Amino acid sequence: MTPVSLQALQAALGGELAGDVDRTVDRISPLASAGPQSISFVTHPRYRAQLEASTAACVIVSPAMVAMVPAGVVAWVVPDPYLHFARLTQWWARQVRPGATLGVHATAVVADDVVLGEQVSIGPMVVIEPGSVIGDGAVIGAQCCLGRGTRIGAATRLAPRVTLMDDVHIGQRCLIHSGAVLGADGFGFAPQDGRWIKIEQLGGVRVGDDVEIGANTCIDRGALEHTVIGEGVKLDNQIQIGHNVHIGAHSAMAGCVGVAGSTRIGSGCTVGGAGMILGHLEIADGVHISAASVVMRSITRPGQYTGIFPIDENGSWEKNAASLRQLHVLRDRIRALEKKTQP
Amino acid sequence: MTPVSLQALQAALGGELAGDVDRTVDRISPLASAGPQSISFVTHPRYRAQLEASTAACVIVSPAMVAMVPAGVVAWVVPDPYLHFARLTQWWARQVRPGATLGVHATAVVADDVVLGEQVSIGPMVVIEPGSVIGDGAVIGAQCCLGRGTRIGAATRLAPRVTLMDDVHIGQRCLIHSGAVLGADGFGFAPQDGRWIKIEQLGGVRVGDDVEIGANTCIDRGALEHTVIGEGVKLDNQIQIGHNVHIGAHSAMAGCVGVAGSTRIGSGCTVGGAGMILGHLEIADGVHISAASVVMRSITRPGQYTGIFPIDENGSWEKNAASLRQLHVLRDRIRALEKKTQP
Amino acid sequence: MTPVSLQALQAALGGELAGDVDRTVDRISPLASAGPQSISFVTHPRYRAQLEASTAACVIVSPAMVAMVPAGVVAWVVPDPYLHFARLTQWWARQVRPGATLGVHATAVVADDVVLGEQVSIGPMVVIEPGSVIGDGAVIGAQCCLGRGTRIGAATRLAPRVTLMDDVHIGQRCLIHSGAVLGADGFGFAPQDGRWIKIEQLGGVRVGDDVEIGANTCIDRGALEHTVIGEGVKLDNQIQIGHNVHIGAHSAMAGCVGVAGSTRIGSGCTVGGAGMILGHLEIADGVHISAASVVMRSITRPGQYTGIFPIDENGSWEKNAASLRQLHVLRDRIRALEKKTQP
Repeated sequence: MTPVSLQALQAALGGELAGDVDRTVDRISPLASAGPQSISFVTHPRYRAQLEASTAACVIVSPAMVAMVPAGVVAWVVPDPYLHFARLTQWWARQVRPGATLGVHATAVVADDVVLGEQVSIGPMVVIEPGSVIGDGAVIGAQCCLGRGTRIGAATRLAPRVTLMDDVHIGQRCLIHSGAVLGADGFGFAPQDGRWIKIEQLGGVRVGDDVEIGANTCIDRGALEHTVIGEGVKLDNQIQIGHNVHIGAHSAMAGCVGVAGSTRIGSGCTVGGAGMILGHLEIADGVHISAASVVMRSITRPGQYTGIFPIDENGSWEKNAASLRQLHVLRDRIRALEKKTQP
Repeated sequence: MTPVSLQALQAALGGELAGDVDRTVDRISPLASAGPQSISFVTHPRYRAQLEASTAACVIVSPAMVAMVPAGVVAWVVPDPYLHFARLTQWWARQVRPGATLGVHATAVVADDVVLGEQVSIGPMVVIEPGSVIGDGAVIGAQCCLGRGTRIGAATRLAPRVTLMDDVHIGQRCLIHSGAVLGADGFGFAPQDGRWIKIEQLGGVRVGDDVEIGANTCIDRGALEHTVIGEGVKLDNQIQIGHNVHIGAHSAMAGCVGVAGSTRIGSGCTVGGAGMILGHLEIADGVHISAASVVMRSITRPGQYTGIFPIDENGSWEKNAASLRQLHVLRDRIRALEKKTQP
Repeated sequence: MTPVSLQALQAALGGELAGDVDRTVDRISPLASAGPQSISFVTHPRYRAQLEASTAACVIVSPAMVAMVPAGVVAWVVPDPYLHFARLTQWWARQVRPGATLGVHATAVVADDVVLGEQVSIGPMVVIEPGSVIGDGAVIGAQCCLGRGTRIGAATRLAPRVTLMDDVHIGQRCLIHSGAVLGADGFGFAPQDGRWIKIEQLGGVRVGDDVEIGANTCIDRGALEHTVIGEGVKLDNQIQIGHNVHIGAHSAMAGCVGVAGSTRIGSGCTVGGAGMILGHLEIADGVHISAASVVMRSITRPGQYTGIFPIDENGSWEKNAASLRQLHVLRDRIRALEKKTQP
């Protein structure tokens, strides 16, 4: 990036600068590797030693930590340094990233009745089926495929190679990454004489505003009603959301999570990577599931929930796993001992 | 959907109607949200209260539950309501979904020697490599890529953006969802001096009739022989099937399952979401693996198998996990106590 | 494959033939199914009975096992039969697979300033954005999408439908399978009043030489610095690599593995299928994580580490899982018993 003065950054983003405001930076760096061209940030006093040794041009800090900033480093003092860092990355991205090319690429195949908003960008090899509506300022990346009756809200961006099947509606200001598939059939079959008879999936997918959906994540269409992703939800990569799931506003899920069909997750929840939530459950608002933990029952109270087999050296694990398979017998033996030793 | 009379539905799908057969419906709804325009279904007496309070136009019920249908609701009496519901969704889908556009889209790149059956539909941006054969009535969705020597059976449908690599054969009446990749290389390497030397994967993939494969699911090609998916198998999204796996007829797997290389799974098996089956195992017919459970040894007897760490409040989990790492020591201490308290 | 004489194979690949060197083979087969047209291999004396009963034309064996080869079978004696088998598959693949079509397909959309090396192959429907450089002999499969400023090393092959976002660099002789997404945004947000504020991901992805990346695998771009995949790394399908992860040279990961952000994995490590490694950890060189095991802390010593709940018949599991939730209470009861029985 072209060097930018700290003063220009402050003018754009606010906060107080303590030090040489004419100094310029050309990169944002983690504190550990920040040099004289870098702006960095620090969020916690445990990084005090790193901060005191820093040769960064400027460090974003809270008022509580400003005294730890060494003499040669400009302090950019803000109430919430991590949030300020996030805003800085957004400003930075706007400077360094070229805008999308407006208009419809010559190779795109867009049905005649598709309604295109103002200032949209439809990339090469895109396919948009009839009855779809693309909002103002939306960006549809190369090779995306949008089925019949899709809706893309204003300022929503689809990275290249996103697939939306029929009747998938996306809100405004969303970001969907490559390889995501929204609206594939939910997994529903009725058994008949040892065979599986398909239940056609007649519902759609409804995604709220300000949602981000990661690469290769799948959100299935509903069986009869819709699968619903609330506003502000953030889903990482490789996630599987089953049919008729509802995810409440501002919940977030890390990579490789699975949510089985018809489960309803509250708002403000988080699920760590590879967490699994079985089907037909209710998860209250403010529930936090640790990574790789499996939710088998509904959870009615907010809190942190965990279920991970602790990793160990293989030899120790083998001994403990063998004992675990006898655990209920051990419990009975303890009970017997307690009985025996009673006076 | 245009309103349809119950009589018309019965004429198409059978069963007995008890009540006003001229009544019309325009949607299929879950019992809990079914209103006067809805047809719904009920499968179990535990929904009795919901059924008795229903204002649905019509409810599909078994003979055993017909007496619970309230006066204002038409009962559609059939031996297996869930199966009947499945058939109803299929009939419904045929009414509401437009058929695929027949012929080869102008933008598709189809090799000269590809054999196309009658009434096929080849969507925009499709690529089909030489030596492939597309059966009658097959639908190849937009942006699919079919490698050399692929075979697509009659009436099989590929959703948009499916990838079949060379020498992948798909049976008849299959359905493959977007993002699925069949025939990528299996994961095979020989170690040499700390490096990995690739074992080229020379086998193909063979998929039987009536198979459904979910979005972003991968089925690797065999190393020397084929990876084989039996007829009627149903695979959900985000599944990984390793090279040379065999899956028996009518087995079903929920999302995020992994099956490592060379494992053979019997027929009529099920694997819950995120279940993992290690490589080179044999799983008998009729084995049911619970969600998130890991199969480390062959299973010779049908039944339900489970291995999930029970989730708990984080504090409780921490205490139990710490004890678990000492479990074999606890076992030894119990043994010592038993010795001590022996007369 | 056209029949090939054993002599021709030996001329290409070395080793010693004992028996009729004019014999021809037309397939490579596993020992169990090898017939008179097959060449096969055996790596361990535990397959002795299978070897002694074999009717293969030729079997690759070590000097230690040559005496077990039956009279009618030609022995191909080499120091490391599995490695030799790998080399044989590579030779075989070169005979049976057609080379990529050189040049740029008429339907590809390649930006004017893209630098194309000698002898490249750019498939149908490919999109390559400005500022990219494609090395000599590289193969870009159908429908791939390469963002701005990508670099593809010489002799690297992308299967159809691979996505590289902006600023992703791939080394030489790599192989990337279909559906892989490199350079999607890492998962980074700052919380603000119950909402998530995006941290724009400004780093790239750097992939070394001789790396293989499986189908539908995702490698996120770095937040500020790059995500780095070392030379010779092998990643299977459906893997998720978070932002700023570093993977050391010649490490290998089986399918469905997840590595959360900022974790550094040493060289020569392996991770079994569905293993999960949490974020901000350090894993030493030579660490081997078993399948489906969850790494929650840094690992400083090489070795094999495991954490899998042992699968069991469902009824037994239920009893043991219930006891497990009381394990710390059981531990306390043992302690109490020990106190009581002390003299």
